Amino acid sequence: MGTLTGRLLGSASSSFRRETRTMSTFVGLAFRSHGSPRDVLAPRSFPRLGDIGRDAVRCDVIASSVNPADVNTVEGVYPLRPAPREGGFSIGGNEGVMRVTEVGSDVRGVRVGDVCVPTKAPNLGLWAEEVIAPSTAVQVVVEGDRASAIPLEKLRDLSCLSVCFMTAERLLRDFGDLREGDFVIQNGATSAVGQAVIQLCRERRLRSINLVRDVAKSSNYLKALGGDIVTDVRNVKEVCRELGIQAKVAFNCVGGESSSALAKRLEAGGTMVTYGGMSKQPVVCPTPLMIFKNIKSVGFWLSGRDGSKCSATETEGTTSYLVEKVLEGKLGVRTSIVPFSKAMTAFTEQHEGKVVFDMAQ
Amino acid sequence: MGTLTGRLLGSASSSFRRETRTMSTFVGLAFRSHGSPRDVLAPRSFPRLGDIGRDAVRCDVIASSVNPADVNTVEGVYPLRPAPREGGFSIGGNEGVMRVTEVGSDVRGVRVGDVCVPTKAPNLGLWAEEVIAPSTAVQVVVEGDRASAIPLEKLRDLSCLSVCFMTAERLLRDFGDLREGDFVIQNGATSAVGQAVIQLCRERRLRSINLVRDVAKSSNYLKALGGDIVTDVRNVKEVCRELGIQAKVAFNCVGGESSSALAKRLEAGGTMVTYGGMSKQPVVCPTPLMIFKNIKSVGFWLSGRDGSKCSATETEGTTSYLVEKVLEGKLGVRTSIVPFSKAMTAFTEQHEGKVVFDMAQ
Repeated sequence: MGTLTGRLLGSASSSFRRETRTMSTFVGLAFRSHGSPRDVLAPRSFPRLGDIGRDAVRCDVIASSVNPADVNTVEGVYPLRPAPREGGFSIGGNEGVMRVTEVGSDVRGVRVGDVCVPTKAPNLGLWAEEVIAPSTAVQVVVEGDRASAIPLEKLRDLSCLSVCFMTAERLLRDFGDLREGDFVIQNGATSAVGQAVIQLCRERRLRSINLVRDVAKSSNYLKALGGDIVTDVRNVKEVCRELGIQAKVAFNCVGGESSSALAKRLEAGGTMVTYGGMSKQPVVCPTPLMIFKNIKSVGFWLSGRDGSKCSATETEGTTSYLVEKVLEGKLGVRTSIVPFSKAMTAFTEQHEGKVVFDMAQ
Repeated sequence: MGTLTGRLLGSASSSFRRETRTMSTFVGLAFRSHGSPRDVLAPRSFPRLGDIGRDAVRCDVIASSVNPADVNTVEGVYPLRPAPREGGFSIGGNEGVMRVTEVGSDVRGVRVGDVCVPTKAPNLGLWAEEVIAPSTAVQVVVEGDRASAIPLEKLRDLSCLSVCFMTAERLLRDFGDLREGDFVIQNGATSAVGQAVIQLCRERRLRSINLVRDVAKSSNYLKALGGDIVTDVRNVKEVCRELGIQAKVAFNCVGGESSSALAKRLEAGGTMVTYGGMSKQPVVCPTPLMIFKNIKSVGFWLSGRDGSKCSATETEGTTSYLVEKVLEGKLGVRTSIVPFSKAMTAFTEQHEGKVVFDMAQ
């Protein structure tokens, strides 16, 4: 992945080996009232807890990512929000990678030095130097004795695992009964989930049709990731007709006209799965497709799936699969590393690629 | 139903007892090229077949209805069309009630004089004085010896059974696992399907929220049919919030803003079923509802359901149930009876209620 992603490899690799924090405070990016992140979010010192309790783990955050859902949480338009802490402030951030620094006395299977990720979006507040989490809210992905051999670049890729890569993998597993050779179609293909969908399709020999805003800009990159077709809303009909292909499932994170374009490329009985709405327009599906082609339109919410749909064991298995793909170098996204000391630039400046905070900078 | 429907009871009751046709031609409302019915449709004489074959029945059509799908078929925007006949003309009409006048030698269970309806939209061409149908394409609903006791008014109600009433009943049976006391919400509530949904809800103690264009005009009528709530797109939110109710399924035959309004009144996990698109706008569903409330949007097409979804036996059973409800006076729609001799007025003039052709006039 290294040649594709254009990561800014800083001088932060030492952070990972940092000794257990001894200061009495840690910094978190926090908000007390809802609004635009640039208005309501700011770095803030929080007192460290002395006693983490018997069932919890304390971790240094190595890196955490900024997802649309995190921004929506700050804005107050997301149905979940992190529990408020001291002074009514909540720390943002729901996805990242951590190193365990302390383990409660009743916790089994987690050791100091292990690298872990959150399980199933538990709202830990990962835009922070430190987190304390119930042991059930994290999953060890690299044991401590192996951790030092993992390049920082791959650790950062792991910071996009529990939300973005997990969403991509569950979309592919949970819908359309996909088999080798089948086509999937998606919009927002340059998003982190979109890039992961392309790579995970390649892993299971599915083929992907990828809609982007700017084909000239994105085509080479997405094709190098394994994307079979890269096109835009205007041309997708002609491209698919020429090749005589239809998709079995569509993944929609845009809405409006773009969702309609996806639905039109589905085969009879196909399913459009909506997991985002970046255009802020509703999901649109032509009536004749629903009636005469039996096209279904459904939603997917990683955090909201009930237990029966994806058990803890299943989530654990999916996480392990994704870790394997990351460590093999088969799964990663274009990132823009933002030093945590300059975290607010993530919300005030334009960044190319998924913003990942490096906590050590 | 009689007091509600304002039917135009003509002098046609003798038609039912009409002797077997002896002329060598019959009249059908036919089209050869697609277009607006007023442009491409016209009454036309077709030669009667002398030999109907061993597996078919010949029937006099008593009454047949004009559905949106029939108009779409003439326009060429419907995926099915009746087989062309002599001169490349197709006879329109897909729903009606018939009296058997001749039975092929191999046919069992159908006798001359029986009243029957088409099964599962077989495109018989019912805007005609006579049809010949495979015996499997019709179902006897009243046996000949009982038929003369059925008032003409109820026979006409039976003419809306195989498409409109069947659609309403299957919507209620096939979606949302509805139980006594549950709410359903629908738009286009004054349509024939909409009226049937209201009455069939009442039969199974479901409650209906009915969206109409003109509440003042439709409210009394729909409430008399059993509609619990009659309102419009503008007020439905407030009405449902005040009463603290949400619906389990929504039936959409309009699209656009109206479909969005239905989706917003669904409880978590609810389903919107689209069976029509009178506004000619696509089905619209707010993105957050799909993602965070797990609202699904699916289509329903009576003619296109595969066998596994609704077997012939199941269709027969549903038909029998609906016949019973019609004969009990618990199911019927507001009709506007148009003499078949003036059939084209159905497409050139405004009619109040479902247009039903009376073949004897």
